[in-house]
Amino acid sequence: MTLQPTPADKFTFGLWTVGNRGRDPFGDFVRPTLDPCEAVRRLAELGAWGVNFHDNDLVPIDATPGERDRIVGEFRRTLEATGMTVPMATTNLFFDRAFKDGAFTSHDPDVRAYALQKTMRAMDLGVELGARTYVFWGGREGAEVDAAKDPVEAIKRFREAINFLCEYARDQRYDLRFALEAKPNEPRGDIYFPTTASYLAFIATLDRPEMVGVNPEAAHEHMLGLNFYHVVAQALEAGKLFHIDLNDQKPGRFDQDLRFGSESLKPLFFLVRLLEESGYDGPRHFDAHAYRTENEAGVWDFARGCMRTYLILKAKAQQFAGDREIQALVAEIRGPDEPFPPYSREASDRLKARTFDRAALSSRPLPYERLDQLLVDLLFGVR
Amino acid sequence: MTLQPTPADKFTFGLWTVGNRGRDPFGDFVRPTLDPCEAVRRLAELGAWGVNFHDNDLVPIDATPGERDRIVGEFRRTLEATGMTVPMATTNLFFDRAFKDGAFTSHDPDVRAYALQKTMRAMDLGVELGARTYVFWGGREGAEVDAAKDPVEAIKRFREAINFLCEYARDQRYDLRFALEAKPNEPRGDIYFPTTASYLAFIATLDRPEMVGVNPEAAHEHMLGLNFYHVVAQALEAGKLFHIDLNDQKPGRFDQDLRFGSESLKPLFFLVRLLEESGYDGPRHFDAHAYRTENEAGVWDFARGCMRTYLILKAKAQQFAGDREIQALVAEIRGPDEPFPPYSREASDRLKARTFDRAALSSRPLPYERLDQLLVDLLFGVR
Amino acid sequence: MTLQPTPADKFTFGLWTVGNRGRDPFGDFVRPTLDPCEAVRRLAELGAWGVNFHDNDLVPIDATPGERDRIVGEFRRTLEATGMTVPMATTNLFFDRAFKDGAFTSHDPDVRAYALQKTMRAMDLGVELGARTYVFWGGREGAEVDAAKDPVEAIKRFREAINFLCEYARDQRYDLRFALEAKPNEPRGDIYFPTTASYLAFIATLDRPEMVGVNPEAAHEHMLGLNFYHVVAQALEAGKLFHIDLNDQKPGRFDQDLRFGSESLKPLFFLVRLLEESGYDGPRHFDAHAYRTENEAGVWDFARGCMRTYLILKAKAQQFAGDREIQALVAEIRGPDEPFPPYSREASDRLKARTFDRAALSSRPLPYERLDQLLVDLLFGVR
Amino acid sequence: MTLQPTPADKFTFGLWTVGNRGRDPFGDFVRPTLDPCEAVRRLAELGAWGVNFHDNDLVPIDATPGERDRIVGEFRRTLEATGMTVPMATTNLFFDRAFKDGAFTSHDPDVRAYALQKTMRAMDLGVELGARTYVFWGGREGAEVDAAKDPVEAIKRFREAINFLCEYARDQRYDLRFALEAKPNEPRGDIYFPTTASYLAFIATLDRPEMVGVNPEAAHEHMLGLNFYHVVAQALEAGKLFHIDLNDQKPGRFDQDLRFGSESLKPLFFLVRLLEESGYDGPRHFDAHAYRTENEAGVWDFARGCMRTYLILKAKAQQFAGDREIQALVAEIRGPDEPFPPYSREASDRLKARTFDRAALSSRPLPYERLDQLLVDLLFGVR
Repeated sequence: MTLQPTPADKFTFGLWTVGNRGRDPFGDFVRPTLDPCEAVRRLAELGAWGVNFHDNDLVPIDATPGERDRIVGEFRRTLEATGMTVPMATTNLFFDRAFKDGAFTSHDPDVRAYALQKTMRAMDLGVELGARTYVFWGGREGAEVDAAKDPVEAIKRFREAINFLCEYARDQRYDLRFALEAKPNEPRGDIYFPTTASYLAFIATLDRPEMVGVNPEAAHEHMLGLNFYHVVAQALEAGKLFHIDLNDQKPGRFDQDLRFGSESLKPLFFLVRLLEESGYDGPRHFDAHAYRTENEAGVWDFARGCMRTYLILKAKAQQFAGDREIQALVAEIRGPDEPFPPYSREASDRLKARTFDRAALSSRPLPYERLDQLLVDLLFGVR
Repeated sequence: MTLQPTPADKFTFGLWTVGNRGRDPFGDFVRPTLDPCEAVRRLAELGAWGVNFHDNDLVPIDATPGERDRIVGEFRRTLEATGMTVPMATTNLFFDRAFKDGAFTSHDPDVRAYALQKTMRAMDLGVELGARTYVFWGGREGAEVDAAKDPVEAIKRFREAINFLCEYARDQRYDLRFALEAKPNEPRGDIYFPTTASYLAFIATLDRPEMVGVNPEAAHEHMLGLNFYHVVAQALEAGKLFHIDLNDQKPGRFDQDLRFGSESLKPLFFLVRLLEESGYDGPRHFDAHAYRTENEAGVWDFARGCMRTYLILKAKAQQFAGDREIQALVAEIRGPDEPFPPYSREASDRLKARTFDRAALSSRPLPYERLDQLLVDLLFGVR
Repeated sequence: MTLQPTPADKFTFGLWTVGNRGRDPFGDFVRPTLDPCEAVRRLAELGAWGVNFHDNDLVPIDATPGERDRIVGEFRRTLEATGMTVPMATTNLFFDRAFKDGAFTSHDPDVRAYALQKTMRAMDLGVELGARTYVFWGGREGAEVDAAKDPVEAIKRFREAINFLCEYARDQRYDLRFALEAKPNEPRGDIYFPTTASYLAFIATLDRPEMVGVNPEAAHEHMLGLNFYHVVAQALEAGKLFHIDLNDQKPGRFDQDLRFGSESLKPLFFLVRLLEESGYDGPRHFDAHAYRTENEAGVWDFARGCMRTYLILKAKAQQFAGDREIQALVAEIRGPDEPFPPYSREASDRLKARTFDRAALSSRPLPYERLDQLLVDLLFGVR
Repeated sequence: MTLQPTPADKFTFGLWTVGNRGRDPFGDFVRPTLDPCEAVRRLAELGAWGVNFHDNDLVPIDATPGERDRIVGEFRRTLEATGMTVPMATTNLFFDRAFKDGAFTSHDPDVRAYALQKTMRAMDLGVELGARTYVFWGGREGAEVDAAKDPVEAIKRFREAINFLCEYARDQRYDLRFALEAKPNEPRGDIYFPTTASYLAFIATLDRPEMVGVNPEAAHEHMLGLNFYHVVAQALEAGKLFHIDLNDQKPGRFDQDLRFGSESLKPLFFLVRLLEESGYDGPRHFDAHAYRTENEAGVWDFARGCMRTYLILKAKAQQFAGDREIQALVAEIRGPDEPFPPYSREASDRLKARTFDRAALSSRPLPYERLDQLLVDLLFGVR
């Protein structure tokens, strides 16, 4: 079991993750600003493959064009020097107070226009640095008060924005796919498109659905208590897993963005197994941050831990696949399968006439307890 | 404000709702069996429009053909005598132990075949009694142990079943639409397609998506703490609200199926307003049951209460629409809108070059507190 | 129904509530600093009875003694001019990074000492301005990582601090009672003493339990989905309801601190009824804040709304008590009661020998559906 | 690492756990009745120490005295033959419809009397078979409708019952302690005393608090998302951990009663460590049941798994205690401690006058990320 990350593992971190300064609703910053270039160098040393950013993680919202160019130039040189990539970029449409009541879904057409402009410019920036995936997280697209907002209208406005930006990307000949990221609440009372599935459903209604997929985040679905493995499976089955945000979270509480695998040891085993066995070849992106109690050094402990646990789970998945007793039990539970005939009048008539023995149908042993215990043993490293 | 229900209100109840006998995981039945024909008569007296059923709510799973015909005949005569309708029917694919590990997604091809057969026969029964909507709730389609089940495969199997049954309905020339009903968990640890949005996404991948929509249930989405008004809005916007299950529930706990409007006074105001103002003209179906503490008489109190609260909320929605102060405040918050130009290179260039004053964008008053208090006043009947 | 608040209603607000500037984990301040004296004047105009504060809401953490005296002097003059009171004060032991891993439960004895000192000084300040209740909310007393912290030790350290501070208050002859405020999580992954009941249990283990009670907060218990009415009832029954924090919250999510009565219309009816009918005569303190979308004016809409909804619910409680049909139904459900004999050998023997008819015991009608619908009608103002 | 359970491990199971027949709200029984004597024999073979029961798990509610004696006699002989013990017993006050609106808190004095009688008789039965702990779980003590029930009165009634039964136990010279078991909801909408802490607080108000402690159940606290390790720590610190119910549960959903350690791998490590290191020497009782998909054989897989995972976690706790790197890191995080002086005027004056350097207080490294990753490695068996 090799637990040393390499670029081949495609581990990426957001600048905002290792750069998180530990502010929370009840307390101030605890860590100093982290220079983006320093972040790149440190992550490269640790074995990461790339970094991702919101526009303003790299370029301040009020930077002059000259400042922007200087910052971007230095950042690019650091990427080149370290061999790090920028596979994904995104827009910050939530921090500035202009977006306090939404960006693409704001009632104010000027806010919506500004959000579009900011996104186009951020797409330019991302593409300039190599991004192939562009993430949309609509943190302020929601409501506390439903009395003056119309969720049907919000969907239409969001669609209008995404359709516009798809055309922009094509017009610019950007080799860029969009990945939509859902979250149920926080900072808004309720955020529109609260789950990955909401976005999967939305994508089918776009002008260019083939350009758009999802970026499921473990913590965001865990907040609701959903089975993230099932969530990601649906995205994969639909051919829409364009990116993934890895972290951890206790259900039913505020957005914790914990170190990957620090809480959900068993659920994330299934996730990693799915990612590794499904042929997903995109980035393994960590969208988490160090505890507020950590100092600067602790941030790198945090980053190391995310990658290490992923590799542990990957090794466990391989062990699971190669374990004879486990695989025999899985085969016993699954039993022989048989392709179902496509519909025809004849198939239908035959099926309707068939006689079933309900008692027999329910009598097959399904030793899930035994299998699950073998998995628990495997996870605990005692087999 | 008239609070007396009439058939024009399109209120329907499941036979299983008023027929619920109060069994729960920790206690036995408390109410006797309710005869389906008696249920129809009582509901007709109360002003309901129709009843819905699972196949085995009406016809026992082991009934002979002769018994079935006798039961159906008597039931039909009761419908005719009372003027009650059967707008929806569905299949019980969860009670019998044959389905203990799933129906359409079972590993066992015989169980899947039996589930299909049972559904075809139940569709026949439903159509025979006038049903135009056919609901699918996959209560056992899920897992506690993910180690021997593949959620990708489960989706494919469910799709295969729905595609088959769409063809069956067409082949039989049934005037029938399908409505898929989601639930996150219970009785399974995790149920596949945990939210309405999961089904909306799934529908787009079917052979005949136009035949298939959703049946969102308030309690099922409230279990996760989702905003049901937003959930239904997405279904409506997609043209997929084919049916709706009205009830109530406290978030984050077992499936309570409480009397409609008994808990979520404010959230369900928005739901009723949406249903009434959106042009939705399907049944208002109550999928709930009386508290276990009620006797037989209490069941009808329960049924009356569901309809009454719907009508109260409908009247509140009309009051909201006609309240000048409220509407002025809504208009102030919304402000003037302006159509956004479709994408063109020129539009894009112009937008990218535009200068925005972020401070100005954030300075518009958004008196949501005031508006929300007016709504609270209206809900409490003090304005 | 008079809905105009007066000082007799004993409504209080925290300086931090109307002074909340709208910062959240994903966005910056949106409102300017509010001068404490201005807050007092505005709240007095609105009909409030008093204000409460953390030490640093009034006096900056790094103020010199001279600055402190100047600030306190001006504040006192404003209180006198407006007739406003300061019934409660508390300590900010969570914002400064010194407390990032706890205050009274920190591993660091210097941090614990500093927390004690800061609290003693803040008690002096509170008492100087008239406070009779001193609240303790241990926002940082908790953990994300249980591997280096001992929850048994944390309880002992917390007890040591409270015992010390009780002696301090007595030694200073302060007429002051302590009220402990629980919260399950946020900002810490888990906070020690997660519920009001945890503190009720803890109080019994203190040196001077008679000096210490609880300050239950609606939102904090709603975060867990608990029935706040039941929670407060236990505190009252134990004689320990020394203060109360009124606000609102959707269950299972981040700490929202919403306007009182904006979400939980029915649950808060029971709460207000309990407070009003139980003889509780302490402050009705609102610990909430305006939505981040509000400007300065909206803050006062928010404050008005809190008080107005309390008064609406109080009027509803009176209506409930005076409604003959409702009271008759309550009486019917309750039935005749009969005092149970105290234990004696004879009473026990007699009871053991008695014959019970289980069927009869279960046959009494319990028309809760009917009663609950009458309550819903009453809440909606349609009876 | 020996993972073979022996009676010295004090593992116990409820008759209702291995005897669970798989009924749920949406489906019927799937397993046949299990004879209590057979349960005892099988559990003895697996290495368990004892069994516990509700009165009606062993003796049907309508058994004649002769039937009772015959059943008890056979059961006792089986215990003697196998060497199994009955450390705990309890009363079923929830299944029979007589208790549909509560037992000790029912409005009906006859129901309360019957509940007392049933409990006295069940205490006799438990003591006859050797029980030293008597558990109270008030599954029906709660409400869906708060309008006709008074939670203050419910507490008083519950106290009256427990006080009476304490006297009964003393009068009978039973060597019996009581352990109160909390649950937040299900089967009632809200159950009184929703958390272990609620009972800890209540115990202090009893006539004989020394006789009464708590029986915390992992799943019941996990339903709310509470940290069970912290919950049990408070009970231990108060000297009130009289019994414990071990199982597992996903937060925010129906009561799952899953195999111990099947979900909460990391949280239950801390729990087992606490139990083993605290000197707790009571039973390790498993209150869980096999998945509904299991047949009879699967029940024993389930039982084996509960004990095995406990022993795995116990071994991990020993490894944790002996791991030098981990212990060094724990020591580094904890730092040197120093006893705090008891209160005196002088100590207080000295403390108030002390100068603290806040920056210094916050600058100590707290490498929790590193420590937590070491724990995760240890749990995964990769160190």
